[in-house]
Amino acid sequence: MDHLQTLDKYFQEQRDTHLEQLKEFLRIPSISSLSEHKNDMQKAAEWLLNSFQAAGLENLSIDETAGHPVVYGDWLHAEGKPTILVYGHYDVQPVDPLRLWESGPFEPEIRDNKMYARGASDDKGQVFMHVKAVEALMKQNGSLPVNVKFIIEGEEEIGSPHLEKYIEANKEKLAADIIVISDTGMYGPGHPAVCYGLRGLCGVQIDVQGAKGDLHSGLFGGGVANPIHAIAEILASFHDQEGTITVDGFYDDVRPLADEERDAYKALNFDEEALKEEIGVTELFGEKGFSHLERTWTRPTLEVNGVFGGFSGEGLKTVLPAEAGAKITCRLVPDQDPDVIIEKLKAHIEKHKPAGVTVNVTEFDKGKPFITPFDHPAIQAAGRSYEKVYNVPTAFTRMGGSIPIVAAFDEILEVPVVLMGFGLSSENFHAPNEHFHLENFDQGLRVIGDYYYEIAAFSKDELKK
Amino acid sequence: MDHLQTLDKYFQEQRDTHLEQLKEFLRIPSISSLSEHKNDMQKAAEWLLNSFQAAGLENLSIDETAGHPVVYGDWLHAEGKPTILVYGHYDVQPVDPLRLWESGPFEPEIRDNKMYARGASDDKGQVFMHVKAVEALMKQNGSLPVNVKFIIEGEEEIGSPHLEKYIEANKEKLAADIIVISDTGMYGPGHPAVCYGLRGLCGVQIDVQGAKGDLHSGLFGGGVANPIHAIAEILASFHDQEGTITVDGFYDDVRPLADEERDAYKALNFDEEALKEEIGVTELFGEKGFSHLERTWTRPTLEVNGVFGGFSGEGLKTVLPAEAGAKITCRLVPDQDPDVIIEKLKAHIEKHKPAGVTVNVTEFDKGKPFITPFDHPAIQAAGRSYEKVYNVPTAFTRMGGSIPIVAAFDEILEVPVVLMGFGLSSENFHAPNEHFHLENFDQGLRVIGDYYYEIAAFSKDELKK
Repeated sequence: MDHLQTLDKYFQEQRDTHLEQLKEFLRIPSISSLSEHKNDMQKAAEWLLNSFQAAGLENLSIDETAGHPVVYGDWLHAEGKPTILVYGHYDVQPVDPLRLWESGPFEPEIRDNKMYARGASDDKGQVFMHVKAVEALMKQNGSLPVNVKFIIEGEEEIGSPHLEKYIEANKEKLAADIIVISDTGMYGPGHPAVCYGLRGLCGVQIDVQGAKGDLHSGLFGGGVANPIHAIAEILASFHDQEGTITVDGFYDDVRPLADEERDAYKALNFDEEALKEEIGVTELFGEKGFSHLERTWTRPTLEVNGVFGGFSGEGLKTVLPAEAGAKITCRLVPDQDPDVIIEKLKAHIEKHKPAGVTVNVTEFDKGKPFITPFDHPAIQAAGRSYEKVYNVPTAFTRMGGSIPIVAAFDEILEVPVVLMGFGLSSENFHAPNEHFHLENFDQGLRVIGDYYYEIAAFSKDELKK
Repeated sequence: MDHLQTLDKYFQEQRDTHLEQLKEFLRIPSISSLSEHKNDMQKAAEWLLNSFQAAGLENLSIDETAGHPVVYGDWLHAEGKPTILVYGHYDVQPVDPLRLWESGPFEPEIRDNKMYARGASDDKGQVFMHVKAVEALMKQNGSLPVNVKFIIEGEEEIGSPHLEKYIEANKEKLAADIIVISDTGMYGPGHPAVCYGLRGLCGVQIDVQGAKGDLHSGLFGGGVANPIHAIAEILASFHDQEGTITVDGFYDDVRPLADEERDAYKALNFDEEALKEEIGVTELFGEKGFSHLERTWTRPTLEVNGVFGGFSGEGLKTVLPAEAGAKITCRLVPDQDPDVIIEKLKAHIEKHKPAGVTVNVTEFDKGKPFITPFDHPAIQAAGRSYEKVYNVPTAFTRMGGSIPIVAAFDEILEVPVVLMGFGLSSENFHAPNEHFHLENFDQGLRVIGDYYYEIAAFSKDELKK
């Protein structure tokens, strides 16, 4: 048997055990953005550390940061061979609106060969696969074909505010030849992709204050500025009716799309009709002159993620509220700089500030956009590993999402980053009923195992950036 | 001793008892808009019925409606004398945001001679005063100088959806010579007012639907319409930058302000600086060309009472939400018609509906604006009762708030309505830390008692509309 057949047999035998273990991990409500879940973050980190130990990783540690801890483990006995740094995250997004979940977000359930739970796909499920791939190779061979280091953080969903500092402080410990991250999506069902570009992220919360307390809308209405009117005016000022962002200079630093990229995306024959059906809209909407893939992979955005103010319960409350606000994030593309964009946003808000209220702007954490050449050997090797298991050509794509820390890895450790994901865009990450297709769990374990052999075939020099 | 001195002595002796009783009433969380408080509505109605009985009222009943019940009681033994119908409500507004309350909304507490609780001023406190005024006269004299009927409803804060039908069905039972309502405010501290005009009310909830579920703002952002952008665009379209409402034809039926009213308001020397200080704003804001009193008493409004969509918790959630919405109410002035305004609102929303989303509009209940001649004898008599107790001239005013049922009483029972209130505009009705100044509780009991004697001096004919 070659190594793929051996792996396959092992993963089939262990499948039920692995899925039960994954469920344990998914039951921990490790929501990084909500302080009430601080203890759950610690629990998830400890669960992961135990799984590292079971897999045969060494030098285990839960490294404290100013926020949630980083979980570290390595195996470094493949002398002269390249070192792979595996990065992922054990934190998850909030779960509201809870009423839309068909089963509890932290009560994992397999239905129709899909694992339903918050984090099933993003990113606990994919982190778990890497751990199990190492465990499989260790159990079979007592060793790995390459050296590996795992660094799994707990703050990805809130923009990795402390990881950059951690990486800087641990440059030696984290030194590697390539970085592998499984937190992106496949191109489609049965159609694997290696991602070579990610959008960056920056954002602000806008808080509008009117009177010092809520007022009766009858007694005061018409005579005192309403913060909801003010926030609506500000939010409406960000786009024109065709969806183009109207913030002065917002598009100034956007690198024009190369003709070859445009052609490559066109060749993917993206099915817009299927997407509309899938997400339940009658029309897609976005900037004129760009296809859907171009809009979501290569164009920057300004999305309002939340708006709040006054009464939103059942029925009516005739209040003139004291406060209103909104949370906004921009997705950025090369060569936009988050700091520059934040300044432009602030200038825009200042310019559109309505009378009679005070407006306060708070920045969220930032991440730079990222792009890597798709002809790098580590990227091409990933494509081959996928093809061996899935038996179709791998797509080399960009992605609309952000992994803010990727640009930091790129800059600090100066090694190529390989994004090999196993999620599907239909899997409701960040939304109710998140799930993970278990056929990609099964295939992905084999892809990852094979990739270690692929990388072992290169010299360290060949992998240089 | 004249009747005022006798009343005064009685109320002083009973003060502690009365305040303890009022606290009992205020402890019942009778929030009419939230279905989870259905049992509390029943409890509040029963509490009130028991207080009617203790006061000596007869023919007591809790009359079921399609919503929350109406509490009725009367005393009809003053043969040949006029009959006063006292209307009020035992339901209260919701209490959020709870974190802004200094003591629990349903844990009444007296601080600095003010009763703090939801409903202390609007309207449980004022209903309670009428019951105690009857009780005082009955205990002292064994009879009342006039006939009285009490009708206290449980749906005022949600627009009295079932009371009009109840009044129509009970025209005989409710027949009276005047209607007295204490649910309005004084002109200011120590400065009583009889109110001769109220704004009407109508409103809609706007619900915007995008995709069928929340989406990841990275993967889909820029390619799918965002319902928050849509609701912001709709909301921002309702006013120009100076606060004038831009809905086509909105002001068409507004009766121009008479010069004598404008002069009378000017003579009140309304202190805009004190108001700004009180509510904590640096500037008042509203339609150009109108004073604050004119804006809030005589001009119609369109206020957004709530906006919602996406994530509003702590931190950040990078979601492209499926839904967003807003609750809107208009205050109307003579001769605007709520049905006509609703149609104009709907046409405006239809016209400003952004691409890529579906928009649904739901109407709230409506109330017509109301106005009564301020030289009517029952109104002037109310002014005299106030002056005897407060020793200052009574102001005859309009009010920005709405008591939707007043217009219905006016139309169905065809008798003058007298609005004699004891609240102050600073008392946070509908907002956190609602309270009631107990000096107006003390004085008000005497004013109401005196008013019964004032009305007893008229023949039924003299009180005709």
